[in-house]
Amino acid sequence: MSTSPGRRTSRRSRTSTSSAPVVSPVQAGMHGGHYTPLTQTEIERIHALVLRLLEDLGLSQVTPSLEARAVEAGCWVDDNNRLRFPRALVEDMIARTRRKFTLHGIDPTHDIEIGGKRVHAGTGGAAPTILDFETGKYRESTVADLYDIARLVDRLDNIHWYHRSVVARDTASILDLDINTTYACLAGTTKSIAVSYTDRASIDAVLPMLDAVAGGEGAFRKRPFCTAVCCHVVPPMRFATESCEALEAAVEAGMPILLVAAGQAGATAPAALAGAVAQACAEVLAGLILCNIIDPNCRGIFATWPFVSDLRTGAMSGGSGEQALLSAACAQMAGFYDLPNSVPAGMTDSKLPDMQSGGEKGYTVSLAAHAGASMIHESAGMQGSLMGTSFEGYVLDNDLLGAILRTVKGVEVNEDTLNFDVICDVVMGEGHYLGHPQTFARMKTDYLYPEIADRRSISEWEEAGGRDARDAARDEVRKVLAEHYPSHIPDNTDTQLRDHYNIILPKARMRTGNGVW
Amino acid sequence: MSTSPGRRTSRRSRTSTSSAPVVSPVQAGMHGGHYTPLTQTEIERIHALVLRLLEDLGLSQVTPSLEARAVEAGCWVDDNNRLRFPRALVEDMIARTRRKFTLHGIDPTHDIEIGGKRVHAGTGGAAPTILDFETGKYRESTVADLYDIARLVDRLDNIHWYHRSVVARDTASILDLDINTTYACLAGTTKSIAVSYTDRASIDAVLPMLDAVAGGEGAFRKRPFCTAVCCHVVPPMRFATESCEALEAAVEAGMPILLVAAGQAGATAPAALAGAVAQACAEVLAGLILCNIIDPNCRGIFATWPFVSDLRTGAMSGGSGEQALLSAACAQMAGFYDLPNSVPAGMTDSKLPDMQSGGEKGYTVSLAAHAGASMIHESAGMQGSLMGTSFEGYVLDNDLLGAILRTVKGVEVNEDTLNFDVICDVVMGEGHYLGHPQTFARMKTDYLYPEIADRRSISEWEEAGGRDARDAARDEVRKVLAEHYPSHIPDNTDTQLRDHYNIILPKARMRTGNGVW
Repeated sequence: MSTSPGRRTSRRSRTSTSSAPVVSPVQAGMHGGHYTPLTQTEIERIHALVLRLLEDLGLSQVTPSLEARAVEAGCWVDDNNRLRFPRALVEDMIARTRRKFTLHGIDPTHDIEIGGKRVHAGTGGAAPTILDFETGKYRESTVADLYDIARLVDRLDNIHWYHRSVVARDTASILDLDINTTYACLAGTTKSIAVSYTDRASIDAVLPMLDAVAGGEGAFRKRPFCTAVCCHVVPPMRFATESCEALEAAVEAGMPILLVAAGQAGATAPAALAGAVAQACAEVLAGLILCNIIDPNCRGIFATWPFVSDLRTGAMSGGSGEQALLSAACAQMAGFYDLPNSVPAGMTDSKLPDMQSGGEKGYTVSLAAHAGASMIHESAGMQGSLMGTSFEGYVLDNDLLGAILRTVKGVEVNEDTLNFDVICDVVMGEGHYLGHPQTFARMKTDYLYPEIADRRSISEWEEAGGRDARDAARDEVRKVLAEHYPSHIPDNTDTQLRDHYNIILPKARMRTGNGVW
Repeated sequence: MSTSPGRRTSRRSRTSTSSAPVVSPVQAGMHGGHYTPLTQTEIERIHALVLRLLEDLGLSQVTPSLEARAVEAGCWVDDNNRLRFPRALVEDMIARTRRKFTLHGIDPTHDIEIGGKRVHAGTGGAAPTILDFETGKYRESTVADLYDIARLVDRLDNIHWYHRSVVARDTASILDLDINTTYACLAGTTKSIAVSYTDRASIDAVLPMLDAVAGGEGAFRKRPFCTAVCCHVVPPMRFATESCEALEAAVEAGMPILLVAAGQAGATAPAALAGAVAQACAEVLAGLILCNIIDPNCRGIFATWPFVSDLRTGAMSGGSGEQALLSAACAQMAGFYDLPNSVPAGMTDSKLPDMQSGGEKGYTVSLAAHAGASMIHESAGMQGSLMGTSFEGYVLDNDLLGAILRTVKGVEVNEDTLNFDVICDVVMGEGHYLGHPQTFARMKTDYLYPEIADRRSISEWEEAGGRDARDAARDEVRKVLAEHYPSHIPDNTDTQLRDHYNIILPKARMRTGNGVW
């Protein structure tokens, strides 16, 4: 009580702050988990239903090959031809499966470690349409769009991977689609990519391409930078036969596998959110168990993606509060199981990157992130409940993701951030913190500066044209697409690929100065 | 393991779901607190600095009257004329102050209970400009705007109070401003209102008006529906002399008092976020202690509002991730103290209700809400880091607040939401949940349907004109302002008020059919 603020010296604190190392305020893989929508008791009740669903109801339509493997491992098939998973097997498998692994980038600087509540965000989806940034109208998406989005994502720091977000409508067959999707993703970014392979033939077809880009035969398996997105179930509680074949092939090829159960609450999953979470967990665990039976060292990702129905129409509502809760609760369940996981967030119902879009992305992504999701898919670029995507969206969402990741980093509490002497210094001295050494030091380590978000005063903004965020983002889209052509695939490799595959993307499209933009 | 899903009957579960009472999925005052950015140890470290700041540094510039009261209660004044608060006094006062109270609406149906992690959202602010919804340009805000915003807020269910959000620029004096602000708020809504009174004269002036609207002399004190917003400090650690006089008058009048410390991290508060939180807590506690010394039954609201500076320019950034953290951490500190509290969120840096605006509001409000803030101020209508407001914003933000409040309600976990029989029913039966009784029941209790947010398909939306959310909101603004004229102030009371006060808002402006809109 007798301490006089005028008497203490502040030299020590000044020295210690100015010598602090400069670390960017946002990195991939910061720890979430401070938001816990479910209590421990609630988690355990959901888990009890998960076990019961797997044991007492099981899943139908498994492939003969997987059925044989599963039965050998301890599953059984009931009179209704449903594959049942005994509780002990499920619990053993949860205990044994990989708790974390590296999701490789094509370039190792983009490797991320998933598992243990480390939070990452990236793209996802299968939109059939894209909002053309020149015309402002929706049109069918193409292979060139896949490549252009890849190039954008390559430049956007807070998007940690590029999982294909549109379906190319200009391919002639499923095989051509899968080959050209893989190629367009590979060519446009050095981040980790993912493609949804619907059958074994597609995976067999693209493996030589992945090896070629990795540096030669067998090279991909050492750094598997392409994830197979596998919707191995058709909810409720039914395996998707062809996808199960793809699952088997992907695991055998050493690919990371995103095991997606995308039921829709009120349609293909219970309308009661807790029930939808339980069903999704059961469905994904069923897939994860099969993957582990195939290869105990598999890189399975627990991707519980229950969606929401607007129950007035039955249509999906990706931007609803209910969706935010489903995804956050699933992330928490995955944390309970301690599994590398994925949830969807950022799936606005809005058709434009507008206020609705921002708001819906803001709360869905932040709750998923703080719930500790390893991978937040669909978190950039999506519009119209996943039915569309927009170029400007990726740029705007990158900013949003940065700010949200800044919140995941949290408040640093230590001797320096709670420095009595700094406050006394200022209060008894100049009266403001602007010139204080701590302020200079913290400016670089604690504060994130957005790329697009406009922080100017109203008058400065008016003088600059008074544009909305979407307009500013469009400029950035034009700039990146005109300038940024990743060239990590050597020319001779590319020529080989073009010789062997029916590559739709013109080679001329992959260089600057081609006059397209 | 031998349970056959085909054999169980589901009649019991169907009956129980269909007889569930219908409760709206969102109410005022749902419980937050599931997001905890700080650990218990971190909270205690911050609290230790708070105590030290109050005891070992104190605040300067207290008024003689408050100084005398404080010294009598156990404070002391140091050689630098700083009022010091002994630790024991602070702790006693935190233990003794009211933990919850009713914040009255003008109409009792709008009463809310604040305290105990019940979450509410509403307006706030002092914007000098408004985005005119007809011209799309910013202009100076007026008394008529205050009234119109009040009418909008009156119709928007997820905005729980109307604290004046703009400063009327068309008044001649501070006294006229305060009188006309109070009148415009009172006239436009039956929700709880708040006005920032900068001195005792303003409070003395408006009390008869508040009594008249409440029903007669002394009636306001019984249901004090007007909160005094009091920026009792000029951070760092200095009392604001005139506001302290207003504080004294407001507490004596029985008004709820919002004790605001609005330091700006990096300028008038430490750049280190934890330090900014500690300083804000100390500053607000200083005010709360004074209020409690004046009246142990006071309705003080712990309003820690540390803002963020963009340290490149020194300008405020209300939409940053750092802001989201400051507000959430402050809400958690208030939870630790178990005090009715307020934090700011929704203060986008964007000048328009655009994607940036939505995103920034989305994460700042959702984190504040989940951190358990009693009152989230500034959560509707604000633009440009509080320097502007927009009509469309209130309508859009109301939707956003609804969705976020839906997430605060959380996931209901019980026998019905985790119903094995419902899942079996569907899986072994029709294969989808659309027609299941549980779906019908949950449709009304679990799902919130937005007013403005567009959930149509891309093609339906295109056919309807392909508009953005702001355009849709503008229609709603026009409609409400053309139709909704609250008439809770009897004509003779209004005539009396107009006789006694210099009321700027024309009486003709307060009726439908006046041709203004």
